[in-house]
Amino acid sequence: MASRSIRLAVIPGDGIGPEVVAEGLKVLDAVSGDLTFEQTSYDLGAARWHRTGETLPDSVLDELREQEVILLGAVGDPSVPSGTLERGLLLRARFELDHYVNLRPVKLFPGVDTPLAGVATDDIDMVVVREGTEGPYTGVGGVLRKGTPHEVATQESVNTAFGVERVVRYAFEVAASRPRKSLTLVHKDNVLTFAGDLYQRVLKRVGQEYPQVTTDYVHVDAATMFFVSRPQRFDVIVTDNLFGDIITDIGAAIAGGIGLAASGNVNPDRTAPSMFEPVHGSAPDIAGQGKADPTATVLSVAMLLDHIGEGDAARRVEQAVSDDLAERAALGARSTSQIGDAIAKRVSG
Amino acid sequence: MASRSIRLAVIPGDGIGPEVVAEGLKVLDAVSGDLTFEQTSYDLGAARWHRTGETLPDSVLDELREQEVILLGAVGDPSVPSGTLERGLLLRARFELDHYVNLRPVKLFPGVDTPLAGVATDDIDMVVVREGTEGPYTGVGGVLRKGTPHEVATQESVNTAFGVERVVRYAFEVAASRPRKSLTLVHKDNVLTFAGDLYQRVLKRVGQEYPQVTTDYVHVDAATMFFVSRPQRFDVIVTDNLFGDIITDIGAAIAGGIGLAASGNVNPDRTAPSMFEPVHGSAPDIAGQGKADPTATVLSVAMLLDHIGEGDAARRVEQAVSDDLAERAALGARSTSQIGDAIAKRVSG
Ligand SMILES: CC(C)[C@H](C(=O)O)[C@@H](O)C(=O)O
Ligand SMILES: CC(C)[C@H](C(=O)O)[C@@H](O)C(=O)O
Repeated sequence: MASRSIRLAVIPGDGIGPEVVAEGLKVLDAVSGDLTFEQTSYDLGAARWHRTGETLPDSVLDELREQEVILLGAVGDPSVPSGTLERGLLLRARFELDHYVNLRPVKLFPGVDTPLAGVATDDIDMVVVREGTEGPYTGVGGVLRKGTPHEVATQESVNTAFGVERVVRYAFEVAASRPRKSLTLVHKDNVLTFAGDLYQRVLKRVGQEYPQVTTDYVHVDAATMFFVSRPQRFDVIVTDNLFGDIITDIGAAIAGGIGLAASGNVNPDRTAPSMFEPVHGSAPDIAGQGKADPTATVLSVAMLLDHIGEGDAARRVEQAVSDDLAERAALGARSTSQIGDAIAKRVSG
Repeated sequence: MASRSIRLAVIPGDGIGPEVVAEGLKVLDAVSGDLTFEQTSYDLGAARWHRTGETLPDSVLDELREQEVILLGAVGDPSVPSGTLERGLLLRARFELDHYVNLRPVKLFPGVDTPLAGVATDDIDMVVVREGTEGPYTGVGGVLRKGTPHEVATQESVNTAFGVERVVRYAFEVAASRPRKSLTLVHKDNVLTFAGDLYQRVLKRVGQEYPQVTTDYVHVDAATMFFVSRPQRFDVIVTDNLFGDIITDIGAAIAGGIGLAASGNVNPDRTAPSMFEPVHGSAPDIAGQGKADPTATVLSVAMLLDHIGEGDAARRVEQAVSDDLAERAALGARSTSQIGDAIAKRVSG
């Protein structure tokens, strides 16, 4: 590997965030070889909010824009009002850095337990391409006559041809690169008729450029049922921000739990750094006890490596995780850092 | 049972709707005894739409208002544009007849297979109280510059203190009537902050009147995960219209499939008739072949009986279904009417 230096922003965040990020960086270090990462750590999260009232100040956002890629642990703490850090930090980063693709593989690794009976490893292998910058996540909405019997609270889902087309196009590219070449739109077009119709028309139009990809449509409610009853039905899914949030948690549940689910908040146009993070939250109940599983973060590091063009390194990390997972049942309980050590040893060994 | 006559509207609808409704009525007849039902059948659905362009005309709606209760099969057909019948007929009935509680039990009957490994019958026994008349189902929204690169499509979730309070209060009543007395609010208050905050405040305020009920909160994405990994976590759930739609389909999946999931669109104030229907759709692919499972409709008939105050009859129908389900594995494949016959025989026998 030719020597190369990458500017990496690290946002450990709250709860178990710092613990799992430490292991992710350990594995990144072990796999890097001639690749070096200039790391800058940002103390964003609950502590900073308590200290200064800031979630993601403009000055930090400007610094982040100068980085090439971001690794995030988790944000959120019960001491902070619900939504403050999620909207002010996590969603703000996704929106400001134009992470219009929220990429979430759902894959059952060999040896990993699924709560589903009668499902084989190969039956769960899909990629969810979740829209990341519009839909019901815009924050548009408001409240009138708050606290009175006449209160009205609204939330608006905003969807644009521009926003839908770019994420649908990305999903076609992902589908075209996979053996099954199958793309399913998940929405609720029989109720959310305006947004659903936009997605349907864009799927049809962009699909003409990808004749090798077969497409179909499933309502979100039925999709959740298929995740449980027939996960092999899906290859690549494209869906809106909220539906993607929901179905990828079921995806995590069927593929071995939230401890293994990785994600990338991707800006495919590279006008700003992409951000990789485990799907799980900050899990304050187990924070600081070495109980968190760092695997989701390590797999997010593999996605990060792919994004910066280091596919070989990414494959080595994935293989190390896969090997570690295959032996887990026999190994008994290990701490966060023991798991990180074991995976790091495999990638360097 | 004292002799009593009930005005029952029947809407068989599309696809498998007429087949499953026929079995529901067969069981209703078998259990009725001195109770008589004055039935009126309404030919709403795809055929009528093709013939007249009507979905639910005002004149029919006025007639429905004069009925005491409604049994519906299923609506929807691929020959009709998606959303036309769903919005024009099903949702119109729910909204106009003020079905503000969409009641959906999720219960695993003995002998029924669940796709979840290691789950016992008692582990899945919850009731989802889904809001039925507001949220993202209002149809509020629109489209601007349709078909151009500058198209914007919006959908608005409208939530009112009036609407939230009445459904939350109903959910507390359900929870208070059950042994565990536990009520979970499912929402996404860290993103949909206005609506989520309204639900949270109403839960807290109304909860003061129900000190015997314990309450908690779970994000919708996490809730779907618990449905798969730990369904025994839930007793009664209250949630908005869209989240309720999604989680009750996962509920159906874990409790033996969509062929068993019953529901009631309830107007607890009885200002208009309530409407009972299986959760499943019209399944055009298997229509007319005697392949549909009528059990969900039969269980919806039990809910209908409960609603009109015939609890004994409702229990007898449930018991007959439970007994039939317990023996199903040994019985092999049966047709729609064979299943209906078997259950009807049990209730009358
Ligand atoms: C924390 C929350 C805002 C976030 C989301 O809803 O996107 C999380 O659930 C996720 O899936 O990354
Ligand atoms: C057909 C559709 C409009 C309906 C809904 O979304 O409510 C259905 O999915 C249901 O759950 O009854």
